[in-house]
Amino acid sequence: MLELSEIYKAAHVLRDAIRHPHLIAAPLINPESEVYLKPENLQYTGSFKLRGAYYKISQLTDEEKSQGVIACSAGNHAQGVALAATKSGIPSLICLPVGAPISKVEATKRYGAEVCLVPGVYDDAYQRALQLRDEKGYTFVHPFDDVHVIAGQGTIGLEMLEDLGDVDVVIVPVGGGGLISGVACAIKQLKPSVKVYGVQAEGAPSMALSLNDKRIKRLDAVSTIADGIAVKEPGVNTFDFCQRYVDGIVTVTDDEIAAAILALIEQQKLVSEGAGAVAVAAAMFNKVPVKGKKVICLVSGGNIDVTILSRVITRGLSKSGRMETLTVDLYDQPGQLSAVCGVIAQLGGNIISVSHERTNASAQVNGCTLRVVLETRNAEHIQLIHKGLTDAGYVIL
Amino acid sequence: MLELSEIYKAAHVLRDAIRHPHLIAAPLINPESEVYLKPENLQYTGSFKLRGAYYKISQLTDEEKSQGVIACSAGNHAQGVALAATKSGIPSLICLPVGAPISKVEATKRYGAEVCLVPGVYDDAYQRALQLRDEKGYTFVHPFDDVHVIAGQGTIGLEMLEDLGDVDVVIVPVGGGGLISGVACAIKQLKPSVKVYGVQAEGAPSMALSLNDKRIKRLDAVSTIADGIAVKEPGVNTFDFCQRYVDGIVTVTDDEIAAAILALIEQQKLVSEGAGAVAVAAAMFNKVPVKGKKVICLVSGGNIDVTILSRVITRGLSKSGRMETLTVDLYDQPGQLSAVCGVIAQLGGNIISVSHERTNASAQVNGCTLRVVLETRNAEHIQLIHKGLTDAGYVIL
Repeated sequence: MLELSEIYKAAHVLRDAIRHPHLIAAPLINPESEVYLKPENLQYTGSFKLRGAYYKISQLTDEEKSQGVIACSAGNHAQGVALAATKSGIPSLICLPVGAPISKVEATKRYGAEVCLVPGVYDDAYQRALQLRDEKGYTFVHPFDDVHVIAGQGTIGLEMLEDLGDVDVVIVPVGGGGLISGVACAIKQLKPSVKVYGVQAEGAPSMALSLNDKRIKRLDAVSTIADGIAVKEPGVNTFDFCQRYVDGIVTVTDDEIAAAILALIEQQKLVSEGAGAVAVAAAMFNKVPVKGKKVICLVSGGNIDVTILSRVITRGLSKSGRMETLTVDLYDQPGQLSAVCGVIAQLGGNIISVSHERTNASAQVNGCTLRVVLETRNAEHIQLIHKGLTDAGYVIL
Repeated sequence: MLELSEIYKAAHVLRDAIRHPHLIAAPLINPESEVYLKPENLQYTGSFKLRGAYYKISQLTDEEKSQGVIACSAGNHAQGVALAATKSGIPSLICLPVGAPISKVEATKRYGAEVCLVPGVYDDAYQRALQLRDEKGYTFVHPFDDVHVIAGQGTIGLEMLEDLGDVDVVIVPVGGGGLISGVACAIKQLKPSVKVYGVQAEGAPSMALSLNDKRIKRLDAVSTIADGIAVKEPGVNTFDFCQRYVDGIVTVTDDEIAAAILALIEQQKLVSEGAGAVAVAAAMFNKVPVKGKKVICLVSGGNIDVTILSRVITRGLSKSGRMETLTVDLYDQPGQLSAVCGVIAQLGGNIISVSHERTNASAQVNGCTLRVVLETRNAEHIQLIHKGLTDAGYVIL
């Protein structure tokens, strides 16, 4: 296993290589508890991954360092290893599947890594990385199932207790389990009374299922907007750590994750990726016992594609009643579009888009349908507009 | 004017009432200079306004405090005054125009203020606030043209020099001028060699024009996405401070502001409002001399409506080549839609929406038009798709 002393050693090694992002109070996340965020989205590279990668590299022999390191990732681990290697003055090679987003490839290069684009999917890139390791003598940096990597992530647990000594509950995102293994190992050895919970996406609950079954389980497929924790199988080491130190693992839905991302934007002015927001989602939706407690939610990363961010915002707006799509059944005669828009305008709805079509969807032969997207104030406002249109004789489909 | 000692006094008074958000390195904002952010979007209430309001209130007599304070604002000043009054244990009344966004009204109430919704626009609410002040004996807290408010904002200048003693250039958003007056006053008295520049929106350049003309000018209308600095006329005091201490005021366009908001999201994981991002925009687009310098950009606030944020992202995506709308001229016969979509898919474009219509816009009598919105990688990728369609014989309108 992992001695507390090794995590302290990692903290010493990391001292000048990382930021120590201080806790931020987040009073509106759950009004019945005192919530703080550990914002690792503000860490260099936009995620916690730098910590584990940097400590891992620091523990290599001089010969291993001169050969360089290799990793396989299309996400935060790639950038963490790239920057850790560059800061340590050693070469790095990152294998990515050829379809990886351009922005991730560019970021990985910018942090100083050489990039190898492998035809196929993640598993192909992974196999290629192992092959290159064997051929060229690179050291492979595993994204989570490595005790040095886990020790590096564990430094977050030390910082949490340093900043909030009387914390009651710590909530941590879980993919392969490296982050929670380190954090729980640090916290349970220093202060066993603190509860440490993990959170997975409902569409990728590999560690939750494995702990339930008391043996490692592999999922055939994973599906979630939290791509950073979409891991099919926990590690051997991380499964052990979780069995020993973690008080429970819960899951959150994609809609809950989207609501958490939106809450972080609106309330805290912080950008989080899907995986980064799952701990906040768990606190918001009372997935773990937080009432009356001092709670730290680990926001593990902020590398969300802005196109996805835009979709998350739109979805969050719909769910909170601030955007609505109406389909209205109309007679196909002049003046109808203007009249409907007039009713909506009078009630304070702001029309974003309109499409007006003669189709079979209408109830009348001589009918047509009008599809209107509106900005609204809240659910009551939407009801008011529905009622206004119905009162004016229009049929909402 | 304002003695440095008063700004230090304000810092002492504010010590336990505010956060001291530390500088954050932002290496990608301008590759030719060393840029840091002062993230006042992470301040309580999401903007710097709490500082000035809290110091102003602290300087009232006991009798004035017992009467309470009044302010007029639909934005950050409302929330700043509300929280400052609540933290000081005194009542506050905020006048807002009746059309103010629900979210702002709710936030102001949540910070403990009573809210008075006034029919009409901002100027009507302002007149009503003055009337209530005279009738009820409240103290009016001006959003910028008040020496105590300016002293409170000036504490940001002290913190900048404390965190980065060898800074060369400080860039500050300017609306009415209260923020830059305080910051410039602090910095120029402590270290006159530091250059202090202000930034206004191109659609609301009241201070810039006033300084050029050496007299206060009032704009008839203002128009910008940076609503927090859409001020028609500078204050008497703030105009004086700017004449004395500020090295220049530049303007940025709405598109430049949108690009800065997007850069802060993608590179720094920080949410900024339009007004909050203008200093970053000025550094990004070299509006002030920053080459080879250590630069601090003040990010003054993060209270952006998420519907606007969503629009800014979409616009930013288009401008950076990551979203494209194509209109293709087609013969109206089966298989055309499928064929065009096939060409786009093969070239890696991800179709978000399609509309296919028979209209007069087409060049042929028997023609129709296809409008496709795509996610793309960059400008070259868009050209590639254009070329692919043209080579396949399609006409892009």
